[in-house]
Amino acid sequence: MSANIVVNGIGIIGKRVAHAIKLQDDMKLHAISTRSASSTLRTLLEPKGPLHKTDLYACSPEWVEKMKEDGMYVNGSLEELLEKGEVDLVVDCTPKKVGAENKKLYKKHGVKAIFQGGEKDTVAKMTFNTFVNYEQASKYDYVRVPSCNTTSLIRLLHTLSQLTKIVEVDVALIRRAGDPPETKGIGNSIVPVMHVPSHHGPDVQTVLPDIDIKTMAVKVPTTLAHVHVFHCEVEKIPKAEKIKNLFKKTPRITVLKAGHGYESTGQVIERYRDLLRPRYDMPEVVVWEETINTQDDDVFWAHMVHPESIIVPENIDCIRSMLGLEKDRNKSIEKTDRSLGI
Amino acid sequence: MSANIVVNGIGIIGKRVAHAIKLQDDMKLHAISTRSASSTLRTLLEPKGPLHKTDLYACSPEWVEKMKEDGMYVNGSLEELLEKGEVDLVVDCTPKKVGAENKKLYKKHGVKAIFQGGEKDTVAKMTFNTFVNYEQASKYDYVRVPSCNTTSLIRLLHTLSQLTKIVEVDVALIRRAGDPPETKGIGNSIVPVMHVPSHHGPDVQTVLPDIDIKTMAVKVPTTLAHVHVFHCEVEKIPKAEKIKNLFKKTPRITVLKAGHGYESTGQVIERYRDLLRPRYDMPEVVVWEETINTQDDDVFWAHMVHPESIIVPENIDCIRSMLGLEKDRNKSIEKTDRSLGI
Repeated sequence: MSANIVVNGIGIIGKRVAHAIKLQDDMKLHAISTRSASSTLRTLLEPKGPLHKTDLYACSPEWVEKMKEDGMYVNGSLEELLEKGEVDLVVDCTPKKVGAENKKLYKKHGVKAIFQGGEKDTVAKMTFNTFVNYEQASKYDYVRVPSCNTTSLIRLLHTLSQLTKIVEVDVALIRRAGDPPETKGIGNSIVPVMHVPSHHGPDVQTVLPDIDIKTMAVKVPTTLAHVHVFHCEVEKIPKAEKIKNLFKKTPRITVLKAGHGYESTGQVIERYRDLLRPRYDMPEVVVWEETINTQDDDVFWAHMVHPESIIVPENIDCIRSMLGLEKDRNKSIEKTDRSLGI
Repeated sequence: MSANIVVNGIGIIGKRVAHAIKLQDDMKLHAISTRSASSTLRTLLEPKGPLHKTDLYACSPEWVEKMKEDGMYVNGSLEELLEKGEVDLVVDCTPKKVGAENKKLYKKHGVKAIFQGGEKDTVAKMTFNTFVNYEQASKYDYVRVPSCNTTSLIRLLHTLSQLTKIVEVDVALIRRAGDPPETKGIGNSIVPVMHVPSHHGPDVQTVLPDIDIKTMAVKVPTTLAHVHVFHCEVEKIPKAEKIKNLFKKTPRITVLKAGHGYESTGQVIERYRDLLRPRYDMPEVVVWEETINTQDDDVFWAHMVHPESIIVPENIDCIRSMLGLEKDRNKSIEKTDRSLGI
């Protein structure tokens, strides 16, 4: 018997998580729910769309009629669906703060839920990363998967910490201004994030509490990806070669050479277009090989994060752990990554 | 016996044409040839790449050793391959002016060739468009497929001319600055093309000689697509509804509503990402429904052109006609479009 999953909120993250669930053999996309007849929703449900024939619900009762007026076939509200008691877990991909609000609904109907990194970490007792705490998620009804930037840092720091003790981390995040379909931008500006140090450091600590990390961020007028300029001090310096090799053999970390022509975010994204990845998604964190360097006690590199997709495999693994579908994290990683072509 | 095709030049166009050939059942991608070990070439030939195990040649003898040094498995030069006499046709996708140079090589070895729109129309006696002159290509050894902007205009003008006689056409082309992987751009500028009227008008006339058309172009700092602001005078004005309906039922023309959320190039491209199209390719020309309008003797609309992929189906059809693989243009269109998921 396969687990019944609902994705609530069909935006940049929700549409990917919904599609990824469809690609698994141990869980089932039972339905999706969302608020309005966006161009994305229309496209996904078209005959050639990847969610064609998926049951559609309105995320709250007041949107049912409007969506019907806009030509969508709506089965009712999410609450009506949850009342039937057939749903095992909701992946909440609604906008920031809406998830925390929705938690009441999930509690009322005794359904487990995953929240995204837009929510405060207090939305759930546990913040998840496959490589750090996969097994623990089986103990909780509500778990949070942190955001794209945080996930990339956790993956890399957890991996580096296998080689040496990390003393202090300092990261500059150069963030993309918005997602590709957005029509609002930041002009031709660089916009420093005024909350200093930024929230990413404390967010990393929700999963890796012993890491001393400080982050700052700026937004730049591009839509493809974030780039992190990473620097940390370590207790005993490993050879750069050792770091490169460990990164290369770790799942969901990819090392690319600028010398092979992968010099920029555009050229790296083109790689995933050329591999014919759906939507050119890149759930791997990509580190530029030439930038992995050491000096005195310091380790340096620059990496690239695809904000639209990096958290997709973590959501799938999290479902698997929470519902007891797979106890072994390595088996879950292997299953998820194979299904996504990683 | 399936036709043996070589694609010479593996850039933005060549890699797509090569992959499209692989998707056909009446022709075979015999080999590819190119100049250097670019990131794109490396990606395409990886185990998960769409051209994995395709035979690779250097487009000219002097590049064989360099590509080998760069770690590529090269079978020899294109000339050595052509000498074997197994190749039926070369699709030349090399940079502007290189194609004309290569023609000598194709002539020497008696092999047919298709050139792209970067070459002057004098490179071949015929410039091709599936909807206008499909059958004639069977008479020629060398045919040119015009560029992205020209192809979009030919498709739409040819379609409109089924409803009324076109008196005069006036188009402003708002061109994307460069392709997505490029690292050189135009800053934050709008750059008018100083050659006025632009070459696109005369280029349309190589296929539709009776159309009186004037064009001007500007480049803007975006990579996704071109947009054309189109206006023409006609002899007898058709109802806008009639134009919309004809466009909707014509292959390779898609009409999308801004009112459904497709308001911008970014949102339209997101549609093709959401449809999981390889590389989000959009060989269709997309017309915004709300912009199709008439006033007095004038017809207006705005359309969007995906420069990387719009000419891919025309290349496939052109191969089919030149090699006598299919006499009926409609059957070729149906076959090509089905294989590309259009």
